Amino acid sequence: MENFHFWSPTYFAFGRDSENEVGSLAARFGASRVLIHYGGGSVLRSGLLDRVKDSLRAAGLPYVELGGVQPNPRSGLVYRGIELCRSERVDFILAVGGGSTIDSAKAIAAGAVYDGDFWDFYSGKRIEAALPIGTVLTIAAAGSEGSPDTVITNENGMLKRGASGDAVRPKFSILNPALTETLPPYQSAAGITDIIAHLYERYLTNTREVEVTDRLIEALLLTMVHEGPRVIKDPHNYEARANIMWAGMMAHNKSVGVGRSQDWSSHEIEHELSALYDCAHGAGLAVVMPAVFTYNLHHDVMRFAQVAHRVWGCPMDFANPEATAREGIEALRRFLISIGMPKNLAELGAKEEDIPYLAKTLCYGNGRQGSISGFVTLTESDCERIYRLML
Amino acid sequence: MENFHFWSPTYFAFGRDSENEVGSLAARFGASRVLIHYGGGSVLRSGLLDRVKDSLRAAGLPYVELGGVQPNPRSGLVYRGIELCRSERVDFILAVGGGSTIDSAKAIAAGAVYDGDFWDFYSGKRIEAALPIGTVLTIAAAGSEGSPDTVITNENGMLKRGASGDAVRPKFSILNPALTETLPPYQSAAGITDIIAHLYERYLTNTREVEVTDRLIEALLLTMVHEGPRVIKDPHNYEARANIMWAGMMAHNKSVGVGRSQDWSSHEIEHELSALYDCAHGAGLAVVMPAVFTYNLHHDVMRFAQVAHRVWGCPMDFANPEATAREGIEALRRFLISIGMPKNLAELGAKEEDIPYLAKTLCYGNGRQGSISGFVTLTESDCERIYRLML
Repeated sequence: MENFHFWSPTYFAFGRDSENEVGSLAARFGASRVLIHYGGGSVLRSGLLDRVKDSLRAAGLPYVELGGVQPNPRSGLVYRGIELCRSERVDFILAVGGGSTIDSAKAIAAGAVYDGDFWDFYSGKRIEAALPIGTVLTIAAAGSEGSPDTVITNENGMLKRGASGDAVRPKFSILNPALTETLPPYQSAAGITDIIAHLYERYLTNTREVEVTDRLIEALLLTMVHEGPRVIKDPHNYEARANIMWAGMMAHNKSVGVGRSQDWSSHEIEHELSALYDCAHGAGLAVVMPAVFTYNLHHDVMRFAQVAHRVWGCPMDFANPEATAREGIEALRRFLISIGMPKNLAELGAKEEDIPYLAKTLCYGNGRQGSISGFVTLTESDCERIYRLML
Repeated sequence: MENFHFWSPTYFAFGRDSENEVGSLAARFGASRVLIHYGGGSVLRSGLLDRVKDSLRAAGLPYVELGGVQPNPRSGLVYRGIELCRSERVDFILAVGGGSTIDSAKAIAAGAVYDGDFWDFYSGKRIEAALPIGTVLTIAAAGSEGSPDTVITNENGMLKRGASGDAVRPKFSILNPALTETLPPYQSAAGITDIIAHLYERYLTNTREVEVTDRLIEALLLTMVHEGPRVIKDPHNYEARANIMWAGMMAHNKSVGVGRSQDWSSHEIEHELSALYDCAHGAGLAVVMPAVFTYNLHHDVMRFAQVAHRVWGCPMDFANPEATAREGIEALRRFLISIGMPKNLAELGAKEEDIPYLAKTLCYGNGRQGSISGFVTLTESDCERIYRLML
């Protein structure tokens, strides 16, 4: 196991009606003037935003609002949020929504206390300071509710880039599984896929003898395999929603990925797709993962065989471990299709003729020098071949 | 899943040489005058205490010392520590050792800022305030490095009692698996057993449909089953030590036990043994667990069959699930014996004629009204029968 530091100080309030604690939690974590940040229709229609405001008022906390966060959240709204924080002297940001809203809130929180352009953080600069953040989560997916990470799309060139820093870990996150019961099945499935990707990308390691994190990741994958279809079949299955919601947080707060090299190439390959075509991040991952794993199979056949056997229940073929490894990837692919995810680029709205552009932007954008690295180092031509496996 | 709050704000520095970060971490978490609290010989002999002092000096932090913590830590030393903190104006307590040392440090930390007798906290009062604590862990076992819990033995009557409060969660904990390589095999095995007990006692729940925490607990149990014997066979197996050390923390920081009822009866039944006979807590648990589980088997045969199948690899006997359930308990018993743990009361130094006293103290001490509660409510006569199963 490699040396590591681990710190996950977020306070979680989990369960039915937990959103009513938002006012007291914001006060406890030092808020005196709040920016409520959210997306659009659903938090208004469901009455969630009103309940959040009631709770803040009951705690004596004034607030201003900024709605309009889109999936694949944009830099334009971040700039508006930063201005609003300064003009209104906001000292706490409350994200009410999913990963996009939380990521946008993190960008605003970091930008509001920074003299330069917030995009510096998405160009490689570590986030060292930020306004405190709280979240009320409405979809289990990104894990942003317990992570130090944020991803923003810059409208200038449609570049989708990530930033990170403990300063943007939420002070508290409110997780009420019932709030996710009204999600359309496609969004639920995209969230499930994102969580599965967070787990696979930690699982694909070059570090030896990491039994404890292997087993923990498998535990969360097994949970997703069991609970995912139950949620798609019955969106109002609270227990299945609850198991997925806690798994989604645990998958990404770093506790199951400590001390091991990881592989974020599926996320990186996908980000080019959702930046260019504005598809759902999880839907993109459903198409990307089987292609990347198939391409990388020979790098470590036994690792793919292990997950095939332990998570997907494939019998181990001792005479031909590669057969087991491939069977596991097929099981993943079938699972993702079964919950309603797309199976190829065409279903994502992506075009074959864009592949050279996608591979080039991926391998030369964001300061990269012609390749991306993780489980396997992939050059521009590797990435082109991987995109072609998705046709 | 039941509603819950979860908060685990401890900062973990994990890996080789991580004890050299102790000075900078103490400074970061606000120390200006430190009490170093430890047990005896091994931290002196190994040079660990000197390295800790060097690191504190390098960070410009003055310190005083209090050694002499015993296994099953005693109230007498806690009173001395509280006095020392007051007379020396200590504002940070650094525990260097295992669970006993950390638990003693937590008692001192709570007592130092409390006007009454610190034993109030071990008689039911919640700990609401304490001096900040840091730890340098030397054995994977109690999980106290990431928990809000502490257990102390009152020499007045040899009562072993627990207390709890987020205020005594360590600000930071330093986990260097190499520091555990010099432990005698018996102590390593007792630590492994304690971790397994923390997992089983969370696993034995009456809450339905808690797949995510079931799977996470199983993952940590599988880790212990795989790595435990490797450590006993080769005490210098760093990788096995590392996997166990992280599993030990994860087993007890609450993240894998959220939202479900739990069963702490094995711990409670054991505490009477180690209070009276001063045996190692883990060794006591090795004798207690198979007896309690056998006694409670009929309360939920399928739960015991599930852990038997998923963790111990027992084939599921669909015609007779109870056979599988019993096979799992036997597998646990054999495992504990194989790593060198005792198998009955005699090997613990306990006497048959004390059983009525043990059952009475257990069920009427600590404000109890004739029974203990968890997975199953156990009366005094139930507890007597359970102790007799250990003969």
